[in-house]
Amino acid sequence: MNNEELIFSRKDQHLIFAVKEKVESTATTMLEDVKFVHQTILDYDFSEVDVSTQFFGHKVNAPLVISGMTGGTPLSGKINSMLAELAEEFHIPIGVGSQRAGLKDPSAADTFRVVKEKAPDVPRIANIGASQVSMGLSVGDAEKLIEMIDADVLAVHLNPLQEVLQPEGEPVFRSFLAGLEKLVSSVSVPVILKQTGEGFARESARKLVGIGIKGIDVGGTGGTSFAVIEGLRARLMGLDVLEEIARDFADWGVPTAASILEVRSVFPDILLVATGGVRNGVEVAKVIRLGADFAGMALPVVRSVYHGGVPGGRRFLDKTLKELRIAVYLVGGKDLKDLKKAPIIVTGKLKDWIIQRELIIRSE
Amino acid sequence: MNNEELIFSRKDQHLIFAVKEKVESTATTMLEDVKFVHQTILDYDFSEVDVSTQFFGHKVNAPLVISGMTGGTPLSGKINSMLAELAEEFHIPIGVGSQRAGLKDPSAADTFRVVKEKAPDVPRIANIGASQVSMGLSVGDAEKLIEMIDADVLAVHLNPLQEVLQPEGEPVFRSFLAGLEKLVSSVSVPVILKQTGEGFARESARKLVGIGIKGIDVGGTGGTSFAVIEGLRARLMGLDVLEEIARDFADWGVPTAASILEVRSVFPDILLVATGGVRNGVEVAKVIRLGADFAGMALPVVRSVYHGGVPGGRRFLDKTLKELRIAVYLVGGKDLKDLKKAPIIVTGKLKDWIIQRELIIRSE
Amino acid sequence: MNNEELIFSRKDQHLIFAVKEKVESTATTMLEDVKFVHQTILDYDFSEVDVSTQFFGHKVNAPLVISGMTGGTPLSGKINSMLAELAEEFHIPIGVGSQRAGLKDPSAADTFRVVKEKAPDVPRIANIGASQVSMGLSVGDAEKLIEMIDADVLAVHLNPLQEVLQPEGEPVFRSFLAGLEKLVSSVSVPVILKQTGEGFARESARKLVGIGIKGIDVGGTGGTSFAVIEGLRARLMGLDVLEEIARDFADWGVPTAASILEVRSVFPDILLVATGGVRNGVEVAKVIRLGADFAGMALPVVRSVYHGGVPGGRRFLDKTLKELRIAVYLVGGKDLKDLKKAPIIVTGKLKDWIIQRELIIRSE
Amino acid sequence: MNNEELIFSRKDQHLIFAVKEKVESTATTMLEDVKFVHQTILDYDFSEVDVSTQFFGHKVNAPLVISGMTGGTPLSGKINSMLAELAEEFHIPIGVGSQRAGLKDPSAADTFRVVKEKAPDVPRIANIGASQVSMGLSVGDAEKLIEMIDADVLAVHLNPLQEVLQPEGEPVFRSFLAGLEKLVSSVSVPVILKQTGEGFARESARKLVGIGIKGIDVGGTGGTSFAVIEGLRARLMGLDVLEEIARDFADWGVPTAASILEVRSVFPDILLVATGGVRNGVEVAKVIRLGADFAGMALPVVRSVYHGGVPGGRRFLDKTLKELRIAVYLVGGKDLKDLKKAPIIVTGKLKDWIIQRELIIRSE
Ligand SMILES: Cc1cc2nc3c(=O)[nH]c(=O)nc-3n(C[C@H](O)[C@H](O)[C@H](O)COP(=O)(O)O)c2cc1C
Ligand SMILES: Cc1cc2nc3c(=O)[nH]c(=O)nc-3n(C[C@H](O)[C@H](O)[C@H](O)COP(=O)(O)O)c2cc1C
Ligand SMILES: Cc1cc2nc3c(=O)[nH]c(=O)nc-3n(C[C@H](O)[C@H](O)[C@H](O)COP(=O)(O)O)c2cc1C
Ligand SMILES: Cc1cc2nc3c(=O)[nH]c(=O)nc-3n(C[C@H](O)[C@H](O)[C@H](O)COP(=O)(O)O)c2cc1C
Repeated sequence: MNNEELIFSRKDQHLIFAVKEKVESTATTMLEDVKFVHQTILDYDFSEVDVSTQFFGHKVNAPLVISGMTGGTPLSGKINSMLAELAEEFHIPIGVGSQRAGLKDPSAADTFRVVKEKAPDVPRIANIGASQVSMGLSVGDAEKLIEMIDADVLAVHLNPLQEVLQPEGEPVFRSFLAGLEKLVSSVSVPVILKQTGEGFARESARKLVGIGIKGIDVGGTGGTSFAVIEGLRARLMGLDVLEEIARDFADWGVPTAASILEVRSVFPDILLVATGGVRNGVEVAKVIRLGADFAGMALPVVRSVYHGGVPGGRRFLDKTLKELRIAVYLVGGKDLKDLKKAPIIVTGKLKDWIIQRELIIRSE
Repeated sequence: MNNEELIFSRKDQHLIFAVKEKVESTATTMLEDVKFVHQTILDYDFSEVDVSTQFFGHKVNAPLVISGMTGGTPLSGKINSMLAELAEEFHIPIGVGSQRAGLKDPSAADTFRVVKEKAPDVPRIANIGASQVSMGLSVGDAEKLIEMIDADVLAVHLNPLQEVLQPEGEPVFRSFLAGLEKLVSSVSVPVILKQTGEGFARESARKLVGIGIKGIDVGGTGGTSFAVIEGLRARLMGLDVLEEIARDFADWGVPTAASILEVRSVFPDILLVATGGVRNGVEVAKVIRLGADFAGMALPVVRSVYHGGVPGGRRFLDKTLKELRIAVYLVGGKDLKDLKKAPIIVTGKLKDWIIQRELIIRSE
Repeated sequence: MNNEELIFSRKDQHLIFAVKEKVESTATTMLEDVKFVHQTILDYDFSEVDVSTQFFGHKVNAPLVISGMTGGTPLSGKINSMLAELAEEFHIPIGVGSQRAGLKDPSAADTFRVVKEKAPDVPRIANIGASQVSMGLSVGDAEKLIEMIDADVLAVHLNPLQEVLQPEGEPVFRSFLAGLEKLVSSVSVPVILKQTGEGFARESARKLVGIGIKGIDVGGTGGTSFAVIEGLRARLMGLDVLEEIARDFADWGVPTAASILEVRSVFPDILLVATGGVRNGVEVAKVIRLGADFAGMALPVVRSVYHGGVPGGRRFLDKTLKELRIAVYLVGGKDLKDLKKAPIIVTGKLKDWIIQRELIIRSE
Repeated sequence: MNNEELIFSRKDQHLIFAVKEKVESTATTMLEDVKFVHQTILDYDFSEVDVSTQFFGHKVNAPLVISGMTGGTPLSGKINSMLAELAEEFHIPIGVGSQRAGLKDPSAADTFRVVKEKAPDVPRIANIGASQVSMGLSVGDAEKLIEMIDADVLAVHLNPLQEVLQPEGEPVFRSFLAGLEKLVSSVSVPVILKQTGEGFARESARKLVGIGIKGIDVGGTGGTSFAVIEGLRARLMGLDVLEEIARDFADWGVPTAASILEVRSVFPDILLVATGGVRNGVEVAKVIRLGADFAGMALPVVRSVYHGGVPGGRRFLDKTLKELRIAVYLVGGKDLKDLKKAPIIVTGKLKDWIIQRELIIRSE
């Protein structure tokens, strides 16, 4: 099996594990430590609630991104097609998984391309790994990725934990910031950075000041954990030391709730997506309240389409967005601006985190 | 099945679910975070303890309201009859469920009327939904409701969560405050507002300042949850998306303990009833200590009469009121005034809530 | 069955329940919130540790009282005999249960008298209920109680919760303080007050200032609960309302740890015994550290002799006192004076209690 | 069975219990209350991470000590041989168990000697108990211990709890400080003190100021508990009182995390080893972050070689050190100096401990 084949099969393994196994972090998002204060005197109708917003200049129907997950194999092509159909139908942004494989192999590229075909009218987010950027991704290749899905944004995903855990991983980031700066200044679309399940801390955010990135997806701890997924893969391969290491890192990282506040303390105005363990519309409302512009969801969406096809995904998104609208209504708001200033109570470990890191929850 | 039939059968469904299923919120009242400080040096006798008080000018034997629940169907008529018999016997106030059905249908009206027949000497609380007020309840109709049970008070119940969850719900409150103001100024009895399980926050209370309402029942989270009940109904109807949404809101709202303090911070002197998850006489004492004038109970009372008839209800109320008297005695008090200044300790999430919302527990 | 018989059989019921059923409070002593700081550099030998102390002028071997429990029936006479044998052997103070029955009935009196026969050389504590004092216990009768066991101290037990819960209870304390004052000034031995499982609060302690009592046994919550015991009796008698009331008060009271601090804030120098849920020698050390002069134990001692006779009791006391000496040694102390200033950490609900009640832990 | 035989068989009992039974404290290390803040922007490669450091002037590959455990019996000799092989291979320091038996018996001495044969190039730590020092260990004997393994350091282990619990224990420390002072000033190698599972408090550390010791191994609570082990032995011997006493002390002591801070508050610059419940490389990183220079591990290492031989031990150490390197990398560091200033969050009981003991976590 050569390296290309490895990438393909790895992608399918990730997908299959994600939809069939317990792959979530043993730590929580800390969103359970956030409680809204219910309002009962509402002098407007539920039908007036509007959760539409802007994503890099595009109007979308809800502050929800279908986070980048897959592509590169026939199975993942089918998944991408269904996810794209849903993004179009709900008029929300959609990302794809790492397009590295698509650069070299035309049939792999098709499994990404389907996204622009099925979701032509919504923002699309291209995706490449930080390792590639560190190792000198060329502007030409970057543009190929963008063109592949006619992307509005390019996401560079950061996954240092996964890189150190994967047997075939490449934890080589020496030239990352330089590469990123070059990429940002030369590609035709805005670039965002995106963690994939260990979150973003203030110190890391600070290193990005001045580089010109246009957004951050905190990809916080509490949802899908690539430590857990790589642990499952390691077990399959008989690499049991690796499996155990992975287990010891299954709670590693900055929980999604904390991560939003960490990033906001450095970038008060950047587009902030909060992916990582967001599981329903009340939690979408919570991440927005804490300071995110968008919630992102990966695992629950891919599970819904894997098991239920487009109807399953529609059912899930319907539910999620209805919940978001209910939450906005019941905190006494009509739109996301109102939501962002709704009173909340913060308890438990998130309270500790906020105090010790001297963070602030804004009420705009 | 037309709309009237729906209301009837819905009422019976609510009742049956309430007495037979787990219908309580997944969140608590936070009353468990309140602890009384036992006093052992008592220089008076237990028989001197007197928990009688006033409800809108009527002397009653205890600070306990049988909260409004039902009416409109033959079954609920029987329940109302038994509850009324108990209210009369214990000389405490009693409410009825939403009388909407009784406005149009004389046989439905009878199921409410029984309350004035069986409980002629205690305060009776009429009941109508905020949606009706929003949609322009006429003064004539309001007076019909009042007359139906010869009510001393009219309660307008607020249930925005239930309205958004019910397939047939009417979450239309645009004209609510205007309608309420009109109602208050024109009906012949005092008007109180009443949440039904998600509680009242300070912000909502503030919207009521100046309108002339005479009381608030906080109807806080921790007891009967209409999210849970509507989830059960949704399952019966095969509306599984709705069922899941309901589940995600099963912990929604302001817990009863917190809600008392929230409302008191706006209305220091209004008649305040604390319904929602109050389950025994110690908890009755706790809500009074926190600032309520009355505790309200719905679920445990209806369960006791449903399963045990009037004797079952008598047994439950006997127990509850004996517990209240014991609690008053063992905090070193003789009456409710003493209870309201008994020392307490507050821990856990209620402490967080109080601190973060800058609330105060009075010791009058 | 007349009243006297009732008292006898009740005494045996209490005893049997205590040794055979779960009779402890559903709340804890909060001693689990106290942690000693281990010292490892010890420049003296374990054999130098000495936990002897004074009890009203008598030297005793350890700061441990066998708390008053029983008497009045043949069974309880046997128990008293064994407990007294142990008190003598370990040279520690011993109390008896309420001697009310012994006042009228000579055979009952013998079951108390055995204590002075078997434990002639240690302090003995006579016992009578606050109700008797309230109802005018004569000085003559008081002296009879004292003479019955040749007591060094007379304990008046306070159990208002039990009195309100017992079907035959007498919660009549109107004249208690007056009666107590008279008793204190006229009897030949020091008088101490003693709760029996709901603890003592500052407010109650304050009412005793100036009356001349010489000691307080806090009898705090967390150990034997007479709410629980009376609940078991109520079940036997088919009084199920009472059973349920008892259950709702099974966590009532001031936990032993808190109660020590409450009393100490009023009486810095009175003899303070801490009974209630103390279960091993580490906990004996903890109550001493918090400010008690003596720990008291009832349940575990009676269980050990009931199931194992004098040898069983010896085994238990051996273990307990060895643990106490180990604890003194490992906090770097040689005696109780050292123990009273050993560093500790206080967490959890006890910390909340201390802060909210503005209490202080002394380090003498 | 004479006294020497007892020591031997006791040593094997400890070993067998340790590898086969649950022997850990019922309290935790409190390391679970420490959380690292993940960094995702890393501008260097994983391969650049270097965790090497110095141990008394010797360069070693990692801040990890194989803690002293055993020796004196054939079985323990085999274990020592394997542990030494691993120490040599991983180039990390290694200790042996108490060498008391080796002083008198040449065949016992051989079971220690193997360590210098198999681990000639790494720091070796000789070991003797505080009781021996108290009872006047001669300089000659001390030098014999040192020579036996050609030790670079001599550890004096403190285990007062074990000494009081062992039937054959010698809790006689009256002359300890004097003996220690003599030892320190006369032996040819640096002396360190080492608790064995109950930790070190500030007060104890203070007693060591000026004596000239060169290091402390906090040996904190949360890992192997000699209370638990002696309880198991007591059960075997039918000493059930002792077994119960042991159980009541199974949570005794200063947790490892707290103990580091306690010692550091007195000795800011001494070599500090943190043994006691450290179980993986993330926890190694945590103790270093809190202020230790080295982590120590006993139980998990002996288990790995007992069950898996040298390969099993290699596997465990490989995993542990890889985890440590990953942790260093993912907090944004390249070496231990960076690790020592990585941001952390502290919650739970450790937070309470730090506040109440006025401790400080340094960020050098
Ligand atoms: C099967 C799967 C594959 C993924 N692949 C990628 C990827 O290629 N690139 C990327 O940026 N994130 C990838 N992610 C991470 C997600 O975008 C997201 O950050 C993470 O799953 C946390 O969100 P969740 O808890 O909602 O799943 C993947 C997630 C899943 C579940
Ligand atoms: C079966 C049932 C029907 C109810 N119907 C009404 C109603 O029609 N109007 C109303 O104001 N509240 C209604 N309630 C709400 C109660 O008055 C009360 O606010 C709520 O149940 C919380 O109290 P609990 O926890 O003691 O049940 C109903 C409650 C139950 C259990
Ligand atoms: C069986 C039994 C009978 C008791 N009877 C009396 C009594 O007559 N008078 C009294 O002052 N306390 C009595 N007590 C209370 C004890 O003295 C003590 O305060 C209480 O049991 C709490 O301590 P413990 O948790 O160690 O049992 C009794 C306790 C028990 C278990
Ligand atoms: C089987 C065994 C024997 C031990 N013997 C000794 C000893 O002789 N001398 C000593 O200083 N520590 C001894 N220890 C204590 C360890 O060095 C260490 O302090 C303790 O086990 C806590 O670390 P752990 O939780 O990683 O096991 C022993 C530990 C074990 C498990």
